[in-house]
Amino acid sequence: MTKTYAELNPSPRVLLGPGPSNPHPRVLRAMSSPVVGHLDPDFLKVMSDTKELLQYVFQTSNDLTFPISGTGSAGMEAALANLIEPGDGILVLVNGFFGGRMCEMVERYGGELIRVDIPWGRIIELDDVERVLKANKVKVVALVHAETSTGVLQPLEGISRLVHGYGALLLVDAVTSLGGCPLKTDEWGLDACYSGSQKCLGCPPGLAPITFGPRAISALKDRRNKVANWYLDLSLVQLYWGPERTYHHTAPISMNYALREALRIVYEEGLEARFKRHQLNQQALLAGLLAMELQPFAQEGHRLWTLTTVRVPEGIDDARVRGRLLTEFMIEIGGGLGPTKGQIWRIGLMGYSSSKNNVLLFLGALEQVLASEGFGLPAGAGVAAANQVYCEARGIAMTAGV
Amino acid sequence: MTKTYAELNPSPRVLLGPGPSNPHPRVLRAMSSPVVGHLDPDFLKVMSDTKELLQYVFQTSNDLTFPISGTGSAGMEAALANLIEPGDGILVLVNGFFGGRMCEMVERYGGELIRVDIPWGRIIELDDVERVLKANKVKVVALVHAETSTGVLQPLEGISRLVHGYGALLLVDAVTSLGGCPLKTDEWGLDACYSGSQKCLGCPPGLAPITFGPRAISALKDRRNKVANWYLDLSLVQLYWGPERTYHHTAPISMNYALREALRIVYEEGLEARFKRHQLNQQALLAGLLAMELQPFAQEGHRLWTLTTVRVPEGIDDARVRGRLLTEFMIEIGGGLGPTKGQIWRIGLMGYSSSKNNVLLFLGALEQVLASEGFGLPAGAGVAAANQVYCEARGIAMTAGV
Repeated sequence: MTKTYAELNPSPRVLLGPGPSNPHPRVLRAMSSPVVGHLDPDFLKVMSDTKELLQYVFQTSNDLTFPISGTGSAGMEAALANLIEPGDGILVLVNGFFGGRMCEMVERYGGELIRVDIPWGRIIELDDVERVLKANKVKVVALVHAETSTGVLQPLEGISRLVHGYGALLLVDAVTSLGGCPLKTDEWGLDACYSGSQKCLGCPPGLAPITFGPRAISALKDRRNKVANWYLDLSLVQLYWGPERTYHHTAPISMNYALREALRIVYEEGLEARFKRHQLNQQALLAGLLAMELQPFAQEGHRLWTLTTVRVPEGIDDARVRGRLLTEFMIEIGGGLGPTKGQIWRIGLMGYSSSKNNVLLFLGALEQVLASEGFGLPAGAGVAAANQVYCEARGIAMTAGV
Repeated sequence: MTKTYAELNPSPRVLLGPGPSNPHPRVLRAMSSPVVGHLDPDFLKVMSDTKELLQYVFQTSNDLTFPISGTGSAGMEAALANLIEPGDGILVLVNGFFGGRMCEMVERYGGELIRVDIPWGRIIELDDVERVLKANKVKVVALVHAETSTGVLQPLEGISRLVHGYGALLLVDAVTSLGGCPLKTDEWGLDACYSGSQKCLGCPPGLAPITFGPRAISALKDRRNKVANWYLDLSLVQLYWGPERTYHHTAPISMNYALREALRIVYEEGLEARFKRHQLNQQALLAGLLAMELQPFAQEGHRLWTLTTVRVPEGIDDARVRGRLLTEFMIEIGGGLGPTKGQIWRIGLMGYSSSKNNVLLFLGALEQVLASEGFGLPAGAGVAAANQVYCEARGIAMTAGV
């Protein structure tokens, strides 16, 4: 036993990638609270609060609303596994990496996959959906509200009406939208929706909030077969999160402390104020990036407030720039996934990470790195453009530099 | 928005139930370290250390050794889902609650379940296994090393030889043994083994360490179908934990910090010293319980060092006693599960919770509660008997009270 393991000492990063974002210090502190048992009265109270607060952020009165004990992908799998029985027609609308992941899961659960591919960076149009619904028997239509791989925000209201008109269920991935931009589960008629703790909710990764509406619950009750996944069987997990409090699995106690604290912060700020903050910071960031002559990747008019994508300028080495941001400035941003690998940068402003300070810091750091990598850009233009946006929002006149 | 949510304030419990146990303060502190990205160089180092330290506690050189991003039940499901294809003969030896859970999962993955029930509280004998192996085509034999529901420690070496003699794989649940009593993955020839973070490793719940040996890896490679579970597909997760570092899902960063710190503490103490500590504290506890005239539940000679079970004395209300321990002394112990509900108490001494202090405190508190509940017992006998064990172990003569 000569080897020794050093004290844990992770770098204090500024997390501006596709997630995780920086948790609020209160959230980190909550995790070091004393651990109690998973049926302790103190923990049952944490569960009740968490459920209520999740209903608030999902804007739903759905009783089946709780965090899955896994990361966002476990939420995706829970939503799909519970609604798919072998042979069911499942339409997945794919306009990015995470739609592709849904297809992979649909096949594992024996669903009849109908996959429609839309170019990455663009939204799904009603016609893309209706054409397929007319021609096929579809039980579930699945899509991504906020594509983390492309930075596109998908409108949901029209698709929801269309899907329900054909008697299908709408399943929505809200991993990168919940708590950062409007997501009206009940008003928009979303039947199944899930998210991750580590993005706009401002909690570390490890939990996946999920909600099922009345139509999805009926589908659960009408199943001919057991869900082909025990850990994620929502009917069993619901017996633990519901009034029965029947033991299913040992809940991740400390992670649930963190999520409750993160949700409490969302509630204190208020959803509307939180959305406005995310919107303003994204506008300032985008103005800065445009002023630096970078080209947005996501379709205009459908850009996320929580994640901004721009093309890597010609002649610039993607990995080198991200590496320098990380090592010289402690800033993490994301690169592209799949077909956009090496082509785009993904800059997240989520939860506690969505702040004026981070926007100004990032634009300043990016200017320094890009300029020293030989990308000619107007000096100071990024920060100035962002400041212009902030001052306008505050009704302050900005004196132009001479 | 009139409702307010109070500051998180869970009670500082003494966790002597079937898990979670109390994490070491260093482990709680580790969780409030800065969050970094799941592909950050700092996190990759945490992963490398964690893998090495898990190999140390599993006593294995298996390359596929890492924590599943879910609780112990997710570990169980990962082990089963990856080794079962529809129609495979799966023998589950059930001598407690968690064997029953395995059966439930086997059916969901389409395995041909062969279930053998052994009375709860007793070990599985070689004859129970051989009889079935002779008569059936069996791919996997699954059993529980340390049954949390009964307090029984299952010997594994003989069964391992037998199972391999019939060309089957041995799958072992070590949720309540790993880090608390000997578990020699390689020496005993265990093919698949999983555990939970929240018991003898002294970490909060949320991760499930798992290890697959060469025969299990071959079975993975020989699969005709994809694993019917995307999140727990070990071949995909291994690409993230292996040298490829291919993104699969966002790892629960803070939980991995906690696990690394918990494992570092195990490593500093040393496995042998740790096992001896668990053994001594259990001997002292059991001596105390016997002196208080309580009757053990688990088969003599096969009692766990990590969890002790005793029968609830006649005329004593199980829930009332546990409730008083919790509210008057902040001590959690467990009641029975399934057929032993209301019949037994389960007293865990796991990880950091396995200490002389907790043994003496618990025996003192139990005496006070039982005496005031009308159970006549020799005054002071429990603590005195425990002290006798400790003094003998230290080679100190104890003067008997007059």
